[in-house]
Amino acid sequence: MAQQHLDPTDPTAGVVTGDALAGYLRAQATEFLRALRLHRETGVAASAEESVDAARALRRSARRISGSLHTFRPLLEAGWSEEMRPELAWLSGTWGLEHSYEARLERLLAALHRLSGSTAFPAQAVDPAGPPGARGMAAPERGNLTVGAAKAGALLERQLTLARTRAHSTALQALGSSRFHAVADKVAVLASEVPLTPAASSTDLRPQAGAAEERLTDAIAALPLVTAGHPYNAEALIHGLSPDPSPHPQDGPWHQVRLLLRLHRYAREVLYGPGAPVDVRLLAAGRSLNRHRDASEAAAAAAQAARTPRIAPATAYALGVLHADQRHEVEAARFAFQQSWQKQAVSAP
Amino acid sequence: MAQQHLDPTDPTAGVVTGDALAGYLRAQATEFLRALRLHRETGVAASAEESVDAARALRRSARRISGSLHTFRPLLEAGWSEEMRPELAWLSGTWGLEHSYEARLERLLAALHRLSGSTAFPAQAVDPAGPPGARGMAAPERGNLTVGAAKAGALLERQLTLARTRAHSTALQALGSSRFHAVADKVAVLASEVPLTPAASSTDLRPQAGAAEERLTDAIAALPLVTAGHPYNAEALIHGLSPDPSPHPQDGPWHQVRLLLRLHRYAREVLYGPGAPVDVRLLAAGRSLNRHRDASEAAAAAAQAARTPRIAPATAYALGVLHADQRHEVEAARFAFQQSWQKQAVSAP
Repeated sequence: MAQQHLDPTDPTAGVVTGDALAGYLRAQATEFLRALRLHRETGVAASAEESVDAARALRRSARRISGSLHTFRPLLEAGWSEEMRPELAWLSGTWGLEHSYEARLERLLAALHRLSGSTAFPAQAVDPAGPPGARGMAAPERGNLTVGAAKAGALLERQLTLARTRAHSTALQALGSSRFHAVADKVAVLASEVPLTPAASSTDLRPQAGAAEERLTDAIAALPLVTAGHPYNAEALIHGLSPDPSPHPQDGPWHQVRLLLRLHRYAREVLYGPGAPVDVRLLAAGRSLNRHRDASEAAAAAAQAARTPRIAPATAYALGVLHADQRHEVEAARFAFQQSWQKQAVSAP
Repeated sequence: MAQQHLDPTDPTAGVVTGDALAGYLRAQATEFLRALRLHRETGVAASAEESVDAARALRRSARRISGSLHTFRPLLEAGWSEEMRPELAWLSGTWGLEHSYEARLERLLAALHRLSGSTAFPAQAVDPAGPPGARGMAAPERGNLTVGAAKAGALLERQLTLARTRAHSTALQALGSSRFHAVADKVAVLASEVPLTPAASSTDLRPQAGAAEERLTDAIAALPLVTAGHPYNAEALIHGLSPDPSPHPQDGPWHQVRLLLRLHRYAREVLYGPGAPVDVRLLAAGRSLNRHRDASEAAAAAAQAARTPRIAPATAYALGVLHADQRHEVEAARFAFQQSWQKQAVSAP
């Protein structure tokens, strides 16, 4: 780990070569296999916290492997890399879906309680480790809600629990599929042998890492940050009643920056090693963008639920309030991102 | 106008006595009578802009007379003053209602268009000078709205136009009533003869004005300004789905500050004369509080409309989005007030 604590802006600093990338990929592959073993041991259908943690660790290392393959593409065998990435994307996509439906429901139910002025809502009312179907609020807790809010909550719970159960089945099927076994085998090989190009050992990683950072800063420069920096600019809800039922197109560039920020963070991990100090401002920016994504998807779920046929007007009203609330969360997240990014720009060397 | 440009914090400055109050009240009473004459000349049912301006000027001077009677109570004949104030409050209340229904509808229709991502909404689509019933958007303009937004707009227009028409009739009846003639007669007397107490001519007004300012600063100190200063604190919508159908009790203290700020402004007018420089920060704070009040009432109107029996779910959904949007306007107005007031505190001597 001689490459730790290198400053990429320092031209006299030592070169970080493909060997560092190989070390990073081996470590992530090992972590992937460890998580997979743990997940199998704790039981596929287990509701234990360990199983959830294992699934999270699995997705986490899959994202890092996939991201590094993308950023440092020229240093890796092209055929292998091109085969590997879509498989990793399929895997983390399939495995992530269940968790995101669960988190979305939790976010929306918490918002409904906040909007009802209820202080009785326990932060952990939706147990992320519980089995599907057993989640959600107990009946007495619903007593704090108006009829509309309670019905909206029940509708969202029904729809998102159904989606979550389906995602759970799909993930289980995936886990038993030959496609999954092929990916797992490839990751097992990666844990001991990284298919670098012949020149990779003497190739500097920093230009690739720099290009990843540049893609990030370019994408951020294209964001409407001046608007985002003005609190209560009312931009996020501007299409709140638009006839277009698709998710707000204005969110796209922010989602893209979220992905580019992640790639930049992983590239830094490759360069500086896992023991290097974490850039807290990058973390803060990333958290704001996660919140942006979560609120955006929660708002869309509320709007979607409101299109359910034959719902009561009170239910639809509550879903409208909820949708607008989450769109304001989107706006708040953009403001928070602008604030954290501004700080970074000022204090950067 | 020797009292102009006095600094009330300067103990060596000249005393402002009851004579200044008498001058102010005479001027406001004269303005009231001028506006009343103008209003009668332009025609009671006229849709002309002059009629609207006259009504506004009438309310404006009624508020100033009433406010000064309140702030400088000890300098005026108690019996007369106690008889006069409720009559002036009745008058400006009766006359203000029509205008506020109209402004509320205009605000809500503009918000519906903004929320539909429509840029086609003309700022003056609701002509404030037009006759009741002829207002609102023409049918082709509604084409930009979704079914829900259009139906919500039509429902609000129906309800608020009805309320406005009733308020108009009430104001017309009031104008022909003996109660109104009695107030007008009293104001006519006030224009030439102000019923000061015998001691008023040698009494300093500044302690009373100072007490009015103190009531204001005390009320502001009790506001949750720290929270308001944090953008996106999500406080204003906290009871957005609460079972309590009454207007948000959290708005009360802000409405109270709005009234106290007005009394403070009028007291300054008495002390420094109408030609004195306007405190732009007081104006900014007052504008924020007007916006707060308007958004609060618009949000309540949207919630109220959503309780109309047998509305379509799409209409209810649009009203929910609209309600939340206006509650966020409430929050934005509090933030703006906090910002303008903070500035004042910093730059005050």
